[in-house]
Amino acid sequence: MTKWYDNIVIKEVEKMENWLVKRAQITPNRVAVTMAHQDMTFAEVAQKANHIAGKISSLKDCNARVALIMTNNVAGYLIIMALQQLGKTIVFINRRLSVDEINYQLSDAGVTLLLTDDDYTQALQIKQQIRFSDLPDGEPIIPVTAFPDDFVTSVMYTSGTTSQPKGVMQTYKNHFYSAMGSAINLGLSAQDAWLAVVPIFHISGFSILMRSLIYGMRVVLVEKFDSQAINELLIHDGITTMSVVPVMLKQLLAALPDDVNYNSHFRAMLLGGGPTDLATLQKAQLHKLPVIQSYGMTETASQVVALDSADIVKKMQSVGKPLFPVSITIRDQDGQPADQGNIWIKSPTLTVGYLNKPQKLLQNMHDGWFDTEDFGYLDEDGFLYVQGRQGDMINSGGENIFPDEVESAYAKMPGLDDIVVIGVPDDVWGAVPVAIVSGTGLSSDSLRQFGREKLAHYKVPQSFYQAKYWHRTASGKVQRQQFKADLDALEILK
Amino acid sequence: MTKWYDNIVIKEVEKMENWLVKRAQITPNRVAVTMAHQDMTFAEVAQKANHIAGKISSLKDCNARVALIMTNNVAGYLIIMALQQLGKTIVFINRRLSVDEINYQLSDAGVTLLLTDDDYTQALQIKQQIRFSDLPDGEPIIPVTAFPDDFVTSVMYTSGTTSQPKGVMQTYKNHFYSAMGSAINLGLSAQDAWLAVVPIFHISGFSILMRSLIYGMRVVLVEKFDSQAINELLIHDGITTMSVVPVMLKQLLAALPDDVNYNSHFRAMLLGGGPTDLATLQKAQLHKLPVIQSYGMTETASQVVALDSADIVKKMQSVGKPLFPVSITIRDQDGQPADQGNIWIKSPTLTVGYLNKPQKLLQNMHDGWFDTEDFGYLDEDGFLYVQGRQGDMINSGGENIFPDEVESAYAKMPGLDDIVVIGVPDDVWGAVPVAIVSGTGLSSDSLRQFGREKLAHYKVPQSFYQAKYWHRTASGKVQRQQFKADLDALEILK
Repeated sequence: MTKWYDNIVIKEVEKMENWLVKRAQITPNRVAVTMAHQDMTFAEVAQKANHIAGKISSLKDCNARVALIMTNNVAGYLIIMALQQLGKTIVFINRRLSVDEINYQLSDAGVTLLLTDDDYTQALQIKQQIRFSDLPDGEPIIPVTAFPDDFVTSVMYTSGTTSQPKGVMQTYKNHFYSAMGSAINLGLSAQDAWLAVVPIFHISGFSILMRSLIYGMRVVLVEKFDSQAINELLIHDGITTMSVVPVMLKQLLAALPDDVNYNSHFRAMLLGGGPTDLATLQKAQLHKLPVIQSYGMTETASQVVALDSADIVKKMQSVGKPLFPVSITIRDQDGQPADQGNIWIKSPTLTVGYLNKPQKLLQNMHDGWFDTEDFGYLDEDGFLYVQGRQGDMINSGGENIFPDEVESAYAKMPGLDDIVVIGVPDDVWGAVPVAIVSGTGLSSDSLRQFGREKLAHYKVPQSFYQAKYWHRTASGKVQRQQFKADLDALEILK
Repeated sequence: MTKWYDNIVIKEVEKMENWLVKRAQITPNRVAVTMAHQDMTFAEVAQKANHIAGKISSLKDCNARVALIMTNNVAGYLIIMALQQLGKTIVFINRRLSVDEINYQLSDAGVTLLLTDDDYTQALQIKQQIRFSDLPDGEPIIPVTAFPDDFVTSVMYTSGTTSQPKGVMQTYKNHFYSAMGSAINLGLSAQDAWLAVVPIFHISGFSILMRSLIYGMRVVLVEKFDSQAINELLIHDGITTMSVVPVMLKQLLAALPDDVNYNSHFRAMLLGGGPTDLATLQKAQLHKLPVIQSYGMTETASQVVALDSADIVKKMQSVGKPLFPVSITIRDQDGQPADQGNIWIKSPTLTVGYLNKPQKLLQNMHDGWFDTEDFGYLDEDGFLYVQGRQGDMINSGGENIFPDEVESAYAKMPGLDDIVVIGVPDDVWGAVPVAIVSGTGLSSDSLRQFGREKLAHYKVPQSFYQAKYWHRTASGKVQRQQFKADLDALEILK
């Protein structure tokens, strides 16, 4: 018997045509990007990108990768498009980082050229540093023909809560499948427009630009988060989708008058970057605002799990179900299927590796599955609940305590501005939770009292410390290890 | 300098989870299929498919491929789902074929089992032939885990206008990219429903089922084409899309009262299978019916080029622009870029080969491009115009004549029912066009007169023959070579 694979003579095409060239061919007159009410079509973007690419290619010290420091504006957007037209890999640098941190990434990525809209003068260690406005003249280039599936178009350093930043490599295929998974979930229309105020140097922002090229969709760029100005756009512009983190959603809702809703085409407020509280979700519902909670990371080229707004009431605390191209399984520490445990993911959007650190990804790979090191469970209907980082879990007398859950319970306490929960060793229980807090009019007694009303008694922090600094990464993640290391320097709240 | 590809440690996942299993997980309660107003959800389809798969797997003579003869009904639909759950390749047999033709395909495909809703008794040469209703009992199976990218899920024999039928192999990746290209072009919504009356044993029909699994979309199955009944569905059911061939579109419009339009959600009448006439398109516009002309073939897993309804007025005769994952180039007989010539396609939807005939596909492949052997051109805006089969072109005194064009020009002639144009050798011009016609009240003079009003004089057929038979393939394609061979037996019209 002949097997079917004996007959395969054509391996499928492993590259698509250059996405921007394609868009300029098939939808030249559609708007690609809007900023401050100025529109630019795909044909115009392609033309401008080739012109800027010509300027960049006239520079001497430009190798296969180029570092980029930018904000969410048209100048930065066009530089990205230009680098893709040149076939360069873009190393996105988070502008909030310190000079030392940036130097580490520039060195690790082996770049010789940094394009920037900022002025770091001589502080950065790089051969050539050029401001966008200082690019020399150059002839427009002929863009690359193809966007190969396996080509790494973007490198983004994860902020690393415990270790050195790792450069996550994202291929065109990663971005294509990410865009497809999102479209299958959220739907797609030629009238769609996606507001991008989340940073483009993060995957949450950059993935919007890639979707724009793939879908032929308008991106509305917003440089600074101003809740009133953004609400105006969402009420009056035909925007259909926006990506937010919880704090943005809260501020937008706080600034929205009770009797005002977003435009009727608005379809999805895609919420990533951690859980949000019940009160915020309820307020969103009052405004008929379809919030889509989601779960994803730089390593998976943005969302891989999303909750449909229709399920919010029923599955309030869940991040939803895996997108169509994505599979999820829950495994224990031995890699065996478990009811509760580490979240493992299989996805065509998974990074092909960390730059210069091949072993780092392989450590977390098991038979094609990527161990996220996040802890969680699937309920009986297949909805995913993320409980926190595996390393953050506190095992107290056999009970598992997740700092995220304890912190969430305190979200509505009057006077409390911020709280971080960590585990500390304990002779009796093995470990117990303690909290570092800031706010006004707080006392250990009132905090303990509040916690006992909301939480199982073993989850209530044993001690409450007055915060001195907040250890967070550039993207806002809490660095619990740093808090642990510094705990001795803090005083217990009276 | 380290190159980016040195760092790739994870080759992207080359298989997705079983699509039906996935759908039953993420959208269990969405309707997968409707027939005669009866709905079945994805969870129900998955359960029933596993049950039927159990029956099939209890049969003895079942190898890697199973042949299927079916109509567009739920029984046939569930057999397809069951075969995919078992990991079998489905060999679709066109029920309109003769017994000899079917036997050729069964033998070529090396199948030992045929599932059918028909009764061919002993006429078919196959080890085991089972009617759906005669399947034995069997325990429900555990479905295959994955749908690998390169797995050939469907084989469809092209009807072969000049040579023996070839079994086109279609992989899951072909179908996935086809569905994605279509969604990017037509848009996507959770409320979508696609009416399938085009045969499921053709790619036009089967591709609807694959889109349904990928999108989580409802399929409305219709077994027989009845223009009044289908119009009723399109007016009252929430159907958003329907695939048609030109004759269906004509009949639907003819049966639609002037003051009635389809439901307001109806988004796309996807028109394939050849060009249609101006009058039909104009009538569609009167009814605000968005007709999307398209171009594709079994080898490209359905449409690869489509015309947006917004462009119909401006580009009436065009089949549109390549879908996002597809590239097109026009080449001359030497494979050089040309203004007018053969249409070459590069697409992730391209077949991986013809079953048992690896050379047949390689003959038409050039550096990753597939030569369709269709003749056409791209206009200055990148719209594709298909003029006909390369082999059908008549070179008359240095002028190219396409039979399709001549036939289209005669479409509105009163009394003419059908016309086929072929080229015959001519001492003076090399070749000249002649026509075979049927109709009432026709004369060679009136036909010549009509042609001279519509066409350049060299395109008007030199002679008009009275038809005796119509040589068409099972899918309705004209077999011009057969007409040429039989021309001597025909009489010239007075």
